[in-house]
Amino acid sequence: MNHPVIPLAQDLISRPSVTPADEGCQALMAKRLEKLGFTIESMIFEDTTNMWARRGTEGPVFCFAGHTDVVPTGDIAQWHTPPFDPVIIDGYLHGRGAADMKGSLAAMITATESFISDNPNHKGSIAFLITSDEEGPFINGTTRVIDTLEARNEKITWALVGEPSSTNKLGDIVKNGRRGSLTGNLVVKGIQGHVAYPHLADNPIHRVSPALAELSQMTWDNGNEFFPPTSFQIANINGGTGASNVIPGDVKLMFNFRYSTEVTADELVKRVLNILDAHGLDYGINWVYNGLPFLTDKGPLLDATKQAIVKVTGYETEPQTTGGTSDGRFIAPTGAEVIELGPVNATIHKINECVKVDDLIKLSDCYQQILTNLLSEEA
Amino acid sequence: MNHPVIPLAQDLISRPSVTPADEGCQALMAKRLEKLGFTIESMIFEDTTNMWARRGTEGPVFCFAGHTDVVPTGDIAQWHTPPFDPVIIDGYLHGRGAADMKGSLAAMITATESFISDNPNHKGSIAFLITSDEEGPFINGTTRVIDTLEARNEKITWALVGEPSSTNKLGDIVKNGRRGSLTGNLVVKGIQGHVAYPHLADNPIHRVSPALAELSQMTWDNGNEFFPPTSFQIANINGGTGASNVIPGDVKLMFNFRYSTEVTADELVKRVLNILDAHGLDYGINWVYNGLPFLTDKGPLLDATKQAIVKVTGYETEPQTTGGTSDGRFIAPTGAEVIELGPVNATIHKINECVKVDDLIKLSDCYQQILTNLLSEEA
Repeated sequence: MNHPVIPLAQDLISRPSVTPADEGCQALMAKRLEKLGFTIESMIFEDTTNMWARRGTEGPVFCFAGHTDVVPTGDIAQWHTPPFDPVIIDGYLHGRGAADMKGSLAAMITATESFISDNPNHKGSIAFLITSDEEGPFINGTTRVIDTLEARNEKITWALVGEPSSTNKLGDIVKNGRRGSLTGNLVVKGIQGHVAYPHLADNPIHRVSPALAELSQMTWDNGNEFFPPTSFQIANINGGTGASNVIPGDVKLMFNFRYSTEVTADELVKRVLNILDAHGLDYGINWVYNGLPFLTDKGPLLDATKQAIVKVTGYETEPQTTGGTSDGRFIAPTGAEVIELGPVNATIHKINECVKVDDLIKLSDCYQQILTNLLSEEA
Repeated sequence: MNHPVIPLAQDLISRPSVTPADEGCQALMAKRLEKLGFTIESMIFEDTTNMWARRGTEGPVFCFAGHTDVVPTGDIAQWHTPPFDPVIIDGYLHGRGAADMKGSLAAMITATESFISDNPNHKGSIAFLITSDEEGPFINGTTRVIDTLEARNEKITWALVGEPSSTNKLGDIVKNGRRGSLTGNLVVKGIQGHVAYPHLADNPIHRVSPALAELSQMTWDNGNEFFPPTSFQIANINGGTGASNVIPGDVKLMFNFRYSTEVTADELVKRVLNILDAHGLDYGINWVYNGLPFLTDKGPLLDATKQAIVKVTGYETEPQTTGGTSDGRFIAPTGAEVIELGPVNATIHKINECVKVDDLIKLSDCYQQILTNLLSEEA
């Protein structure tokens, strides 16, 4: 365990950087990167600490993207070890953020150090885009750094996001895209009244039920080679005064789409409105566009990643687009290729989060090999 | 306005007897009834004050039924006059309880006083069943007095309930029955999960929607000569964590039937369960039997009431079974004929509740005429 990725991961985990706190994690990374000749820009927006670091002025720009914030620990009493006191037990490094994603951040740094040691005059540029608000409202994080870069026409060619993509073993899965996310907040209006006088009232729960049945049974698309079918889920429904004898005046719903590249958010909005209108509902609705779908179905970054994983692990990776959103959704719209590669995600956001020590070493090796494939002096 | 019903109504209204408080109303009534030779039994159950008063030991037993409690005032600042400071303005007596139902209680007393003055040796018995919890949970009110009477085999032949039955003018409507009320509390279970992984979850809102569509569109019966069709209303629905990305683990509903004599509560339960089962739902349900439907479609009490109204007002009354529940539901199952006759209900449970002074005088006359028709020395 003499690989330098482990003590760096431990140093990062020991900082209790629950969103949007950074707790000096970025400064620690910046110190290592400065030694390598990176130019560091700290970008603080409101409560969020972001860092943009770059070595080189030419393109193509390879960028490691990630976050120093972690989700809350939950009940600390349930942890076998203190969540911010990283320890290695039976080959696993334990602590909040071990897998999501301080282990990845450490691997990015050590990979870069090794790569630059071998390739002091690498091609293009290497960059780091790090935020302290990926797990939170993500308003002042990656999206604002991207806005800043776009405003000065600074482009990322390839973004490697350190999200824990692996399922059973390191690198078995990489994410080469993510579904879009669209949320609807719906209020269906009726007329409040006494249940004893239903002819004087208009029950909005009765009104909306056939529309909900239709929406929840709808096939929105069949997905495609890269995406599972678009999914619609009602997350919340609330109507009524609590009393048994009052017909409520309205019912409120919140639903969410996770959608493929086979449809657009605008098409989904239109189809939902058509169904609500076809059922003659009196309603108000507002939409939250959480993120567009993105896909990197081919290109040098995907090729370099696949080749690196085979070389380091001996097996092929599988590109997938399932799962939640990531900050890749903010980087992809600039035209960048985006791939996510990180450790096994079995314990993320849970009590007793941990990561295999060997996997962090392999991850550092993969990252280094990707850099080598794309930017080495001989590439 | 020298009729004695008015000062008695004012005395009752001035007592702020919001459910379950009685504030001495029943003692005031008892004092008047004792002078007439009534035997008074005060029955206090928990927080509820009840009175059973009876004059005579023989049958048939004619019983005035009513309540001394009133609903809360709401925002007192919105009242044109203080709600517990009864005043007459333009021929209307204003105050909380004026119409529901302290005016009726006063009319019952003055009617009885006049009737006994004319018929000191009336046939059968006259009784009063008065509670201070008709507007509230009605657990310790009329139902427990009835239980007490039933336990000693004391029967009511005819019950005249003073609920404000009139719609446009005094006596235009009497209630000769009420629908049953049945409440269901339903929990439909699913499997909680992340909206990004719908295949690992089971959305209970999606599951229940087609069943709700079917329940809300169902014809339960077509009513009959006396009852409107049975009505099903969902009063409350709640599911979800509040977050947009979590599929809830369950959804809770409360619904209520107002049902006719064409169906029974047990039949409704069975039909609901059949629908839930047909949709393959995993659910828990509990039922609250609020009251059975009852009907007095003929008999001496209805005849006496119709005749009295024509005689006092000059027009025919119309028996109806619409509207909410009343304490009649607790009296009717003992075998009693039950009719509800009281003032115009336009302002009940509202700000600025009031009743026409002339109507209270006519109501006292109607009550007296009903007593005369049923129990006079010559009847």
